[in-house]
Amino acid sequence: MSSPIADLHAIVPAGGAGTRLWPLSRTSKPKFLLDLTGSGRTLIQQTWDRLEPLTGPERIHIVTGVRHADQVAAQLPGSADLIAEPAPRDSMPAIGLAAAIIARDEPEAIVGSFAADHVINDVATFGRAVAEAADVARDGLVATIGLKPTFASTGFGYINFADSLPPHPTARTVREFVEKPQAEVAERYLADGTYLWNAGMFITKAEVLLGHLEQLHPVLHDGLREIAAAWGKPEQQSVLERVWPDLTAIPIDTAVAEPISLTGGIAVVPGTFDWTDLGDFDALAEEGALHSAAAITTEDDAFVYNTTDQVVTVAGVPGVVVVVTDDAILVTSRDDAQLVKKLPALVKESGREDLV
Amino acid sequence: MSSPIADLHAIVPAGGAGTRLWPLSRTSKPKFLLDLTGSGRTLIQQTWDRLEPLTGPERIHIVTGVRHADQVAAQLPGSADLIAEPAPRDSMPAIGLAAAIIARDEPEAIVGSFAADHVINDVATFGRAVAEAADVARDGLVATIGLKPTFASTGFGYINFADSLPPHPTARTVREFVEKPQAEVAERYLADGTYLWNAGMFITKAEVLLGHLEQLHPVLHDGLREIAAAWGKPEQQSVLERVWPDLTAIPIDTAVAEPISLTGGIAVVPGTFDWTDLGDFDALAEEGALHSAAAITTEDDAFVYNTTDQVVTVAGVPGVVVVVTDDAILVTSRDDAQLVKKLPALVKESGREDLV
Repeated sequence: MSSPIADLHAIVPAGGAGTRLWPLSRTSKPKFLLDLTGSGRTLIQQTWDRLEPLTGPERIHIVTGVRHADQVAAQLPGSADLIAEPAPRDSMPAIGLAAAIIARDEPEAIVGSFAADHVINDVATFGRAVAEAADVARDGLVATIGLKPTFASTGFGYINFADSLPPHPTARTVREFVEKPQAEVAERYLADGTYLWNAGMFITKAEVLLGHLEQLHPVLHDGLREIAAAWGKPEQQSVLERVWPDLTAIPIDTAVAEPISLTGGIAVVPGTFDWTDLGDFDALAEEGALHSAAAITTEDDAFVYNTTDQVVTVAGVPGVVVVVTDDAILVTSRDDAQLVKKLPALVKESGREDLV
Repeated sequence: MSSPIADLHAIVPAGGAGTRLWPLSRTSKPKFLLDLTGSGRTLIQQTWDRLEPLTGPERIHIVTGVRHADQVAAQLPGSADLIAEPAPRDSMPAIGLAAAIIARDEPEAIVGSFAADHVINDVATFGRAVAEAADVARDGLVATIGLKPTFASTGFGYINFADSLPPHPTARTVREFVEKPQAEVAERYLADGTYLWNAGMFITKAEVLLGHLEQLHPVLHDGLREIAAAWGKPEQQSVLERVWPDLTAIPIDTAVAEPISLTGGIAVVPGTFDWTDLGDFDALAEEGALHSAAAITTEDDAFVYNTTDQVVTVAGVPGVVVVVTDDAILVTSRDDAQLVKKLPALVKESGREDLV
């Protein structure tokens, strides 16, 4: 993209524990604050780098927990707009609050929500998909970007698309959103060709989103408008702290996207760029993020992520994953990577809450 | 055993790299110097504890490399007799030199060789086997103690026994020594009932051993006698350093035990005590030497050996073995434990000879 999209604001909800990436990801240092791919940039910095050509440096809004706000600020340019949530309330209140604040000053603004911890290398193709989604949004629709599946993942929800949507070159109407499928169902989706991964990217006029919210979740809508009205004024913090705790914790998918898909309110732009949410160590290994100069292995397929000076060696154990940090070591395998999410609770139970 | 066996000396060759137990076992700190079972006593200390009731504290002779002599001395009582080899020459020169030194002063002495790094818990039964072997040795035979196999191991050589040997209660003649077998052959040996594990324990009159050596390896024999003649005299060190480097490096099994088994010169006392050579991490895991208060695992069968403050966690990976030391970490599995012996060379190649 040579120049920003004039009316586009990006909203980046930066929450999420990332328990499947423990012990790299900790409560005090979640996934988006880490340079998991060894690129020299953390995931939220990579997100910034990807969005800034589309929005310019003044219109990226990060919604994060109060305990992470300082670290986010330290990683991003001063022009980043930080909105600190007093407590996590899932993605709908986070995105909705940013949208309400933006809409107050710029009623025609288009807002796009993008996760803080995804990896996309083909930024040009990503930018074209966002631009088309913004065009769809100008028609009054909510647009989402769905990723063309590259394997039969059981870890993502899917979007089933239907008709094309002229004059937009690739956009499609949405038939339905479907939950994370069982393996056989995922194979069917992959073969079918009309299913895309739901990557949680939604592009819409701010007022369209707030309008849906007013209809579907009026109490939440009113709370967000009330906080937005006070934003930037002396009463900002007192209103935020009074209203926020009672807001419904709900993801944007179930709050808005799924309901409006039933009445034709949402369209999907197929994303053909490479994409990963680095959801677990299997995904991290797939990305090839070998983070160790000192791993010595008898097999070729070991995945070792080592942040210490200890030399890590592996004898046999096909598909093993070894993660070494100063205070905690994890051994799992690419097949067992989903089990890692059990560990933070076990570690906490063992009396080592400091490691979680 | 209530009192020592009057004419018995124990010879303990303490060499061996223990590469299959790297990174616990290092060149500078081999297996026998380690407390691998968490008993509070190192393996050579456990060996001492087991032999001292049989020989008394003055007649245990440790033959070890010069680089380990100080550490051995520090771990054992002052009455231990240390013989420092200028260079490793395998077990026959080590045992033969001790035997020649003992025989010089005590021509009728019986010597028993016992590895420095085995684990035997039932010391009473072990002691009875040694006492019977010493009785057999007084008849002029070489006696070995063979262990009743508890599984079809492919990691040990076997001793095939034949007739009983009255008046000795359990001793048998030896039909042959056989090499480490393939899996199917090992199964056959186990089923057969006349095969015992060769644990490298040989009990014989010192002069009988030296007589066999004179016949079978005259140059080696003469060299050992020459060093023994100088032992304790001012020329000890100069003779040792002149003669030792040219001695043939050969194990006692192939040097003496196997050849004399062909002519009826060796008998075996079946050992029914529990025994392990802790040869690899599978054996160590079998012994249950869980060395970690801080291992957190989703499965029950992980084996974690941790000498650091890092918390070790395991998600999935049945049969995994994790060894954590300050400078090196090993991940393997009980099935792949034999592959560990490849690692020290790979670590050395990688430029980290300091870790080997």
